[in-house]
Amino acid sequence: MKNFINSGDIINYQYLLNEINKHKNDKSDLSFIGKNKVIGLLFFNPSLRTRLSTQKAAMNLGFKSIVMNFRDDGWQLEFDENIIMSGNKAEHVKDAAKVISQYCDILGIRAFAELKHKEIDNSDKIINSFVKYATIPILNLESSIAHPLQALADAATINENINTNNPKIVLSWAPHPKPLPHAVANSFINMCKINNYDLTITNPKGYDLSKKITEGIQIINDQELAFKNADLIYAKNWSSYDQYGKVLLNDDSWIINENKMKLTNNAFFMHCLPIRRNVVVTDSVLDSNRSLVIQQANNRTYATQTILKELISNEK
Amino acid sequence: MKNFINSGDIINYQYLLNEINKHKNDKSDLSFIGKNKVIGLLFFNPSLRTRLSTQKAAMNLGFKSIVMNFRDDGWQLEFDENIIMSGNKAEHVKDAAKVISQYCDILGIRAFAELKHKEIDNSDKIINSFVKYATIPILNLESSIAHPLQALADAATINENINTNNPKIVLSWAPHPKPLPHAVANSFINMCKINNYDLTITNPKGYDLSKKITEGIQIINDQELAFKNADLIYAKNWSSYDQYGKVLLNDDSWIINENKMKLTNNAFFMHCLPIRRNVVVTDSVLDSNRSLVIQQANNRTYATQTILKELISNEK
Amino acid sequence: MKNFINSGDIINYQYLLNEINKHKNDKSDLSFIGKNKVIGLLFFNPSLRTRLSTQKAAMNLGFKSIVMNFRDDGWQLEFDENIIMSGNKAEHVKDAAKVISQYCDILGIRAFAELKHKEIDNSDKIINSFVKYATIPILNLESSIAHPLQALADAATINENINTNNPKIVLSWAPHPKPLPHAVANSFINMCKINNYDLTITNPKGYDLSKKITEGIQIINDQELAFKNADLIYAKNWSSYDQYGKVLLNDDSWIINENKMKLTNNAFFMHCLPIRRNVVVTDSVLDSNRSLVIQQANNRTYATQTILKELISNEK
Repeated sequence: MKNFINSGDIINYQYLLNEINKHKNDKSDLSFIGKNKVIGLLFFNPSLRTRLSTQKAAMNLGFKSIVMNFRDDGWQLEFDENIIMSGNKAEHVKDAAKVISQYCDILGIRAFAELKHKEIDNSDKIINSFVKYATIPILNLESSIAHPLQALADAATINENINTNNPKIVLSWAPHPKPLPHAVANSFINMCKINNYDLTITNPKGYDLSKKITEGIQIINDQELAFKNADLIYAKNWSSYDQYGKVLLNDDSWIINENKMKLTNNAFFMHCLPIRRNVVVTDSVLDSNRSLVIQQANNRTYATQTILKELISNEK
Repeated sequence: MKNFINSGDIINYQYLLNEINKHKNDKSDLSFIGKNKVIGLLFFNPSLRTRLSTQKAAMNLGFKSIVMNFRDDGWQLEFDENIIMSGNKAEHVKDAAKVISQYCDILGIRAFAELKHKEIDNSDKIINSFVKYATIPILNLESSIAHPLQALADAATINENINTNNPKIVLSWAPHPKPLPHAVANSFINMCKINNYDLTITNPKGYDLSKKITEGIQIINDQELAFKNADLIYAKNWSSYDQYGKVLLNDDSWIINENKMKLTNNAFFMHCLPIRRNVVVTDSVLDSNRSLVIQQANNRTYATQTILKELISNEK
Repeated sequence: MKNFINSGDIINYQYLLNEINKHKNDKSDLSFIGKNKVIGLLFFNPSLRTRLSTQKAAMNLGFKSIVMNFRDDGWQLEFDENIIMSGNKAEHVKDAAKVISQYCDILGIRAFAELKHKEIDNSDKIINSFVKYATIPILNLESSIAHPLQALADAATINENINTNNPKIVLSWAPHPKPLPHAVANSFINMCKINNYDLTITNPKGYDLSKKITEGIQIINDQELAFKNADLIYAKNWSSYDQYGKVLLNDDSWIINENKMKLTNNAFFMHCLPIRRNVVVTDSVLDSNRSLVIQQANNRTYATQTILKELISNEK
């Protein structure tokens, strides 16, 4: 694996899921893998799980980590080509990426969608600029349009909990007061496609995700209908894709609560966190014994370990 | 020791003081203690000594540290229960604490009093929420009402310097332009009580600390009277507790200077730092050979080492 | 070497250049050098190369690093003596430096010129205050008036690339929209003097650097004349020194482009980065095979390693 930008960069998804299981349960010393190697972690946005689990994964493999909150710690970066840099951007990503490549062995980047211009976000400009100019493997810590490390941890969590043959998985839109990016939903859908899961998406009218992503997946606008016989409810808010970045619905009609969960086949509940309690989901569902959210977060560490191992092996 | 939140969590204070002495003077390799273990340090407020000495202590014991300036690096946390999270708080401490517990082995929290609502500060909401929901030991790096690591380093410093039998210790309020929390003073008093020190508090009228804390301790409003025959002056500003969070006195009448120190029994001078020179104390007193402030700061490292060792031993 | 504040602190520059070459090419394990030792890195300003290369150098030598963005993470520092600290500065450098000296073995400081008061900047107040009060070696990570680690990496880069006997080196002022400090230019000039390089400075009228620095060096106001037969163009913007901190020229007449480079003896191009493309230099020059900027940045790691080794050896 040269870089890890999208779920599609994984050649053998099932192999990695087995690897995650090994990393989680076999506590033998793996510190030789990253010995004398450095992972740079550049955060353009806030992060709790990704920040900590990536550092933890790095430690478990013997890597050293250098963390930068890029907007404050470094220089504002220019991403456009052939530009006269007379504004407030002090450094071009072309130079920054080449320079950082000399100090680090792997570079993780977190850069959310700004939700202003669909085409800019869809080009995943920040992370792809680093891919273009860096000479070391790039690790996606959530980009404008993809969060494949989350999806890999989600797949591991599904693997650990659902033994049913061909479980019915429902990705349900849920309310949120602020406009959120599409990255988590996109990567969850891609992961389900790769693993041939039986996926249904349910979201209000106006909230359909990019057709490129949802192609071949059933979208139902009636949430309660979608929940029937589900084995897993994966909740996530996202802003409108058609009316790009807009919040169209601002009531609690799509909250996930016990009554809706009763329509399911005693389904598990998943969410990537952070989650707004009693907005996205009621306390009673989130704190129930069918909720897998804490386990999902734990699996982030082991998912990241397997990817770091793949990225550094390719380097040798 | 399950958590270290207050001085009262220490079962045998004298044993720990002996341990501090050993950690300070015996430089043998203790890196086996924290091998492959991670300390998470969450700062909700600025910190110099605590930030550096805790990382140094962790290193000396072989722990890895992950530091987060929580307000900027992570998500705004909600601490109230059963709330509809539709405001600006993106994550509930209930979830954050459980998640972080999976990445770390010990979690240090620094969260000052806001000095707006006495009851909220007295409930020590932030650190106690982490105690409630985390599944790993919690270390107090200064909470709303307590700074027991500082008090432990203070006790070690007193031990190293004062051989007098039953020394007279005076905790003196001192001026400061801004309203400050009560945590350091509270923990110093508690530590003195635990060690049966002969403690006198001197502060202006209106500046009495919580009666629960000062119970059984003499409070004198005449600073010069209090200083007579003192063996140790421990200076600290705090805002009013009765008129909660208010600055009532804004002149230099309570500054600690050479003339006042002359009233003492050649007393040592202590302060937790940071200190405003020529506001709290004159340069001449702070820079005199009776000032122990730099030594106090040094002892923070060794005090923290002993507590980290206690916390991780309990874990096994 | 007790501290590394200026290029003049290096006793034998040629010896260090040989050392840099060894550190770069001999990849044997040097982690014994910094074992159980801590480097504190205090940033009062943004940093990319210095931040990462210093941490990388520290790792390569087995040191642990503690990084603080001082303005946000710690307390505002007072640097003036004998002052009543009733304003917004919570701690005096005198106390901070002594305290930090107890937690670290080497202390790196980055504190740019503010470009408001020439005398204050010339006194290099922040770093010299740390030198005055700290009890551990101080490492200059760019101060008001000097950036000797950059100059050392520059010298190593010149060494690696130019075999000509007595090459002609031209330090050329270049345009920039914002007022920049003089530190990099100052240290480059000092380094050239120490190594007896044939240096010419070219800058517009009104942009002469401090006479103390440029003494004995030819300054030419005609950039094209200066470029003739040059073997190396070192580009750098700086604000006016006479009209202190002012930007006097705001057009592109001094940009370094292919036509100007054609006047040279097929010169190499150097710059410390970050660089504003098509303002300081055109893309075509910066991306040409004569550009050494990425190599310069790489040499920062090895230059810093040799200095850290010198500083810690002195400590024993």
